[in-house]
Amino acid sequence: MPDYQAPLRDLRFVMDELLDYPAHYARLPGGEEADPEVVAAILEEGGRFAREVLAPLNLSGDQEGCRLEGGEVKAPKGFKEAYRQYVDGGWPGLAADPAHGGQGLPHSLAMALNEMIASANLAWGMYPGLSHGAADALRHHGTDDQKATYLAKLVEGVWTGTMCLTEPHCGTDLGLIKTRAVPTDGDAYEISGTKIFISAGEHDLAENIVHLVLAKLPDAPEGSRGISLFVVPKYLPDEAGRPGERNGVSCGALEHKMGIHGNATCVMNFDGARGFLVGAPHKGLACMFTMMNAARIGVGIQGLGLAETGFQNALTYARDRLQMRSLAGAKAADKPADPIIVHPDVRRMLLTQKAFAEGGRMLVLYTAQLVDVVEQGGDPAERERAETLLGLLTPIVKAFLTETGFEATNEAVQVFGGHGYIQEWGMEQLVRDARITRLYEGTTGIQALDLLGRKILTSQGETLKVFTKEIHKFCQAEQATPGMAEFVRPLAKLNAEWGELTMGVGMKAMNDREEVGAASVDYLMYAGYVTLAYLFARAVRQARAALEAGTGEAAFYRTKIATARFYFERLLPRTRGHRQAIEAGGDSLMAISADDFGLGFEP
Amino acid sequence: MPDYQAPLRDLRFVMDELLDYPAHYARLPGGEEADPEVVAAILEEGGRFAREVLAPLNLSGDQEGCRLEGGEVKAPKGFKEAYRQYVDGGWPGLAADPAHGGQGLPHSLAMALNEMIASANLAWGMYPGLSHGAADALRHHGTDDQKATYLAKLVEGVWTGTMCLTEPHCGTDLGLIKTRAVPTDGDAYEISGTKIFISAGEHDLAENIVHLVLAKLPDAPEGSRGISLFVVPKYLPDEAGRPGERNGVSCGALEHKMGIHGNATCVMNFDGARGFLVGAPHKGLACMFTMMNAARIGVGIQGLGLAETGFQNALTYARDRLQMRSLAGAKAADKPADPIIVHPDVRRMLLTQKAFAEGGRMLVLYTAQLVDVVEQGGDPAERERAETLLGLLTPIVKAFLTETGFEATNEAVQVFGGHGYIQEWGMEQLVRDARITRLYEGTTGIQALDLLGRKILTSQGETLKVFTKEIHKFCQAEQATPGMAEFVRPLAKLNAEWGELTMGVGMKAMNDREEVGAASVDYLMYAGYVTLAYLFARAVRQARAALEAGTGEAAFYRTKIATARFYFERLLPRTRGHRQAIEAGGDSLMAISADDFGLGFEP
Repeated sequence: MPDYQAPLRDLRFVMDELLDYPAHYARLPGGEEADPEVVAAILEEGGRFAREVLAPLNLSGDQEGCRLEGGEVKAPKGFKEAYRQYVDGGWPGLAADPAHGGQGLPHSLAMALNEMIASANLAWGMYPGLSHGAADALRHHGTDDQKATYLAKLVEGVWTGTMCLTEPHCGTDLGLIKTRAVPTDGDAYEISGTKIFISAGEHDLAENIVHLVLAKLPDAPEGSRGISLFVVPKYLPDEAGRPGERNGVSCGALEHKMGIHGNATCVMNFDGARGFLVGAPHKGLACMFTMMNAARIGVGIQGLGLAETGFQNALTYARDRLQMRSLAGAKAADKPADPIIVHPDVRRMLLTQKAFAEGGRMLVLYTAQLVDVVEQGGDPAERERAETLLGLLTPIVKAFLTETGFEATNEAVQVFGGHGYIQEWGMEQLVRDARITRLYEGTTGIQALDLLGRKILTSQGETLKVFTKEIHKFCQAEQATPGMAEFVRPLAKLNAEWGELTMGVGMKAMNDREEVGAASVDYLMYAGYVTLAYLFARAVRQARAALEAGTGEAAFYRTKIATARFYFERLLPRTRGHRQAIEAGGDSLMAISADDFGLGFEP
Repeated sequence: MPDYQAPLRDLRFVMDELLDYPAHYARLPGGEEADPEVVAAILEEGGRFAREVLAPLNLSGDQEGCRLEGGEVKAPKGFKEAYRQYVDGGWPGLAADPAHGGQGLPHSLAMALNEMIASANLAWGMYPGLSHGAADALRHHGTDDQKATYLAKLVEGVWTGTMCLTEPHCGTDLGLIKTRAVPTDGDAYEISGTKIFISAGEHDLAENIVHLVLAKLPDAPEGSRGISLFVVPKYLPDEAGRPGERNGVSCGALEHKMGIHGNATCVMNFDGARGFLVGAPHKGLACMFTMMNAARIGVGIQGLGLAETGFQNALTYARDRLQMRSLAGAKAADKPADPIIVHPDVRRMLLTQKAFAEGGRMLVLYTAQLVDVVEQGGDPAERERAETLLGLLTPIVKAFLTETGFEATNEAVQVFGGHGYIQEWGMEQLVRDARITRLYEGTTGIQALDLLGRKILTSQGETLKVFTKEIHKFCQAEQATPGMAEFVRPLAKLNAEWGELTMGVGMKAMNDREEVGAASVDYLMYAGYVTLAYLFARAVRQARAALEAGTGEAAFYRTKIATARFYFERLLPRTRGHRQAIEAGGDSLMAISADDFGLGFEP
């Protein structure tokens, strides 16, 4: 069974040293609670919970899966008890507003913990994970009454939440939804329709489930401008706010999926269920985006978390497994063969995982600071800048970290060889679990359109410039720093090229809108590689400073520099292929008619 | 449930038009039987069998899996009956020597059929699939008596075969095996030990199973020079050659795997089982390579087959699924949304699959001609050249087509969006099934070492030159052909660069052998992309010729050219990243000590 240890030392490096979280928290209104000692204690305790409570349930949860019996869903053995411990530990409300019963700690801290939860047990993490999105939507758009009724319960964790968007015929294109909401008495509506792919739609972990549901009012305009958001509880709260009458919403079936077997992915039937409008009529999509942006970053964190778990276990295996001799001569002459970590290609696979995990962690925690500023920051100018950067980075976090997370978990399998394909080792589960992250909350293709089309080109590239300027400044400042040229020079070149590529696509797109879609995924991957290069370059500067200042942990900092060097030499060159693909444009994509695509096999 | 149609038109293009199989068969001693009408009829009938008999059992076989009860393994429902039809149809002996009851048709034809079987039902295909390897080993290395006893049964298909190599502590490093063979009476040995990962080690499809087993004799030298090969039947043949006494070999457990659930992957226990030496003592590894090289190409074909099935179903889905409008304006204004095939990024994903499937098919059938020449060719010089090229291309077929097959099946899932993750659509199964192909019969890393180390550098690059010369000649001949410059120019450049990169690695490797392993996988991928570029360029020339000559199938040929253009513009640029990674060398891989790798998470 795979083991997992929270990467506390690396978290400390990224938070305390690289991104100066202590100063960040000190400046954040309300952030003063998060003093370094508190943060360290929370991360340590979270790591313990992830390792000792969640990780041991990961393989068994995958093998057991969920069961639907008489409309009730049973989560795998141990999940309920682990959730109780999670609630008892006060984890659900860590970053929630004290006004709603939360502890008011910064969101970034919760995000660091979410990495650990995803690493240890992704399927379990999806039960509380969706509650945050539901709580966010209610916090931003709910009435005072709705907040009083639902929010405190979600923050406490005794109720969980869902996001009910997708229907059988529409996922990406929510303008097509058919679920209807008909006004009845008072402020209530009757909701009817079928939703699919509802994570944690029904389960036995909490006493009530709060569904946030997209539906159409009778007078709704066509398309996505005619969607409204409703809150639909599984049990209607009674006068005392406790779960009362059973509402007309039920789980019709569980999906049989490739992975995350421990999480209940439900078909939810709404049969005249009683619901309440959240936000203005027909403005549901905007409300939904409140939930979705946080959820997208959450999914990126999942990609990172799985990369880390795969790396840790592949490393252990590579140290233990004896197979063949080093080409340079026996390294463990006393043993029948050398441990496979001596082989350069095994190291390439381990370093790929390590670089994606550590690079992803830097990106997530860099983005997490922006979330803090957007949510709690005091200075409006600073907040506006953070909002812009957060909008830019959200699709990169979501798509790049799930694409690289998938690659990393596959490399973990590859290090294990044939044993990686066997369930008991747990590596193949990571791949199956990681596979969903490239799909849900908007596929990689959707994120790429969001990044290039909606975020960058719509702003005439201004959004991007906020980020490339920051990178440019870093390069300017560090170009003469001893030892930095090796990193700064290629970074500066790529950073300038990023702008040029954007201009190039933008020009082409003025003549032909299809050019945006044609370039988008290669563009997003390019952007991801450059973004990680920037963060690795900063990590090198930090590590060099520590080494120069004298440190008792020289090996840690030297390893960080070596990892960055590997990233620059062996992974960053992939930008060359993406650049050429972007520059090639869309003609070769559009040349074949839908009919002609099948001429090789269709009679 | 996924559908599958044999790509008969594309097979005809590659075999009849691109590679001139009719002339190839006409020149092949014994190949005259394979006249175009016979070939067409066999491919058509094979396609029907794959589509109507095998494909319908693929999803159900995955869901049902195999059962071990009282030492007997039951394959999923329908597998046995399908196998009976396969035997009744005379398929097992298609390319086998008539002296052993085969039909004596060329091996290449069987390889084309194997693509269809892999496309339709990989797990089922693994039952007869291993028999070919066992038969090959006996044909090349068995005594006349062994041939008489086992070969005809394997060729007829009433018995199946296995390859028993791997043990719990060794897969790649067969020098470490512990299974023992002790001489007893006459020519018999007592075989004792445990083998794992034995595909089709035990099942109910055939009346007997012939295990080819690696074991060590009492006087065996250490390491891989001390391994011998034995034939160990499940039932010892009686006087009449029929299954008689039960031998001391049994299935101890079935592995629980990520995929190919319909195939029984067995732990096999040999408890003093009666076995017979195949080939000379201590020369088992050489005999095993006879089986392994064919098996490696077979696995490459599996990667291709899965890519094709994913592509076909993703195409159907992309034509049917309505979601969003084209960025260039509605394409299906009468419908609530456009079919997703209008979106450039969906087309990028479809074309990636199409290019890898069609490119892979060209590579397999090009390689298959070499197999024919090696096996049956008359001219010694031609045969030697074919042997050289086959040695070079085998690791590329194995590793490149499984890496790209895995990518292609993942793109198929991605086209389906969230539905791709759901079992009933069948796409996620393709990914799980494809995942093993990167591992078994030698991981991608092992193939890459074979290609760069054993095949190319050991020959001082001479092996590679045989191939690059052929490409060079093609480029020379076609550089002035109208319409070809767009393909020939980049191909010629890459072909020259391939040689330079090889020289570069070779020079570095003289100082440091680790440089071979450091470059190997990037090198193999680079080689694969260039090889497919060569074949796509040839396909373009062929298609242009057909268009110029006037054809009733202009759309087919224009689509072929468009696919090649996509490949050159959007996939071939990946060579840029691989090149840089190769040139970066191995220092960044070797810098971190095994202990320091874990400093981010190990306390």
